[in-house]
Amino acid sequence: MRNFKLTLEYDGTDFHGWQRQLGMRTVQGVLEEAVAGILGKEVQVNGAGRTDAGVHALGQVANFVVDTRITSEQIGRAVGAKLPEDVQVYGVEEVNMDFHARFSARMRRYVYYLRTEPTAIWRRFAYVVTMPLDVETMKRAAGYLIGEKDFKSFTPSRTDGVPTRCNMVAIEVEQHDEIISIDIKADHFLHNMVRVVVGTLIEVGRGRFQPEHVEEILRKKDRAAAGPTIPPNGLFLMEVIYDE
Amino acid sequence: MRNFKLTLEYDGTDFHGWQRQLGMRTVQGVLEEAVAGILGKEVQVNGAGRTDAGVHALGQVANFVVDTRITSEQIGRAVGAKLPEDVQVYGVEEVNMDFHARFSARMRRYVYYLRTEPTAIWRRFAYVVTMPLDVETMKRAAGYLIGEKDFKSFTPSRTDGVPTRCNMVAIEVEQHDEIISIDIKADHFLHNMVRVVVGTLIEVGRGRFQPEHVEEILRKKDRAAAGPTIPPNGLFLMEVIYDE
Repeated sequence: MRNFKLTLEYDGTDFHGWQRQLGMRTVQGVLEEAVAGILGKEVQVNGAGRTDAGVHALGQVANFVVDTRITSEQIGRAVGAKLPEDVQVYGVEEVNMDFHARFSARMRRYVYYLRTEPTAIWRRFAYVVTMPLDVETMKRAAGYLIGEKDFKSFTPSRTDGVPTRCNMVAIEVEQHDEIISIDIKADHFLHNMVRVVVGTLIEVGRGRFQPEHVEEILRKKDRAAAGPTIPPNGLFLMEVIYDE
Repeated sequence: MRNFKLTLEYDGTDFHGWQRQLGMRTVQGVLEEAVAGILGKEVQVNGAGRTDAGVHALGQVANFVVDTRITSEQIGRAVGAKLPEDVQVYGVEEVNMDFHARFSARMRRYVYYLRTEPTAIWRRFAYVVTMPLDVETMKRAAGYLIGEKDFKSFTPSRTDGVPTRCNMVAIEVEQHDEIISIDIKADHFLHNMVRVVVGTLIEVGRGRFQPEHVEEILRKKDRAAAGPTIPPNGLFLMEVIYDE
């Protein structure tokens, strides 16, 4: 058996998320179909991040294990030819059998893009917030999330046994003209977590929460304490980091 | 009568270009429909640049003349509410009656975006060229186009009496990572002209034309002498410049 690692990009707008679902167009679904078409057998493709419907990826990582003689270059070319235009595989390499895209990942990095002006061009890739936002207070609020914390307040209540403590190593809030980017890196992320974190930072930026209120939200371990879950369109899975 | 000037942005992917055509979804068509819906009468909206199917705009300018008491702020809000999400009006102002979006324009600026790597995210907004391009020779070739020249070779042969001499004031070719932008400013543009100019610069960049061959293409006044018409998806109308 051989193990192949793929790095891929997709426009999530027209997908019902990463995970295979019967009768739905999903990224995992189209990838598995493309790989099966080449290898002539069913293959399970594991993704590092199970992105929600409408979430994009510039650096999603996946792997699959298969018994084949085809080289990684051949797989890359053949998969690329079979994939629809909103998914792009830009790297295929053979890796050790113990590599698993999800379980071997050490860190994930997501970026959420806000735009402060209405936009036709960027509507698929940014969430528009036209009310004035104070980016400096958003940066201060983000600082309270850094470190190993329980993010239960930032995910829908049913956590299904997944540990809600995450090691948040960085959150950078930056403004360039009409774009505000929130760049977040952690060991793992809970369902909807980036969207609730950014929704909460928006509440801070518009003056509805004080920055230090974020500490209280963390302490409450209650989804109702945090800000809203904002739409998926501004969210990109940028990078998945593994040990060398 | 009053004259209103609009500045607008659109994602041209799902439009059959600017110009109204029976049974086709066009930018002029949806704008005229939105304006008519507000004012309760048919209105002709003039555009500064009649962009082709699939071409985008970040700074298209339009105007319409109408007898109404509605203020420009009210028009902006009402038109914005009626337009589909791929068109965005971001400025409405009342102007002198002698202003015409197309005939009063002094300069237009277009930018064409190439990408040197395949892309799912940017596929609507950039043309992918994976063969190696020498950007320095493209810059040199672009230099031969500057000034007042006859661009007959850069437009389909039937020029319909439109003067084919254009005053090309600037062409800047820049590369940033995997993006090559070609930023072009002229008093007016012929049909398909930016796409043929960039198609020709690509031929130079890949070594099929020498930079100085551009002089000969201009001299020939023959469409067949220039490079191919590349797809519309990388092209943006950025700005239309008027006298103060």
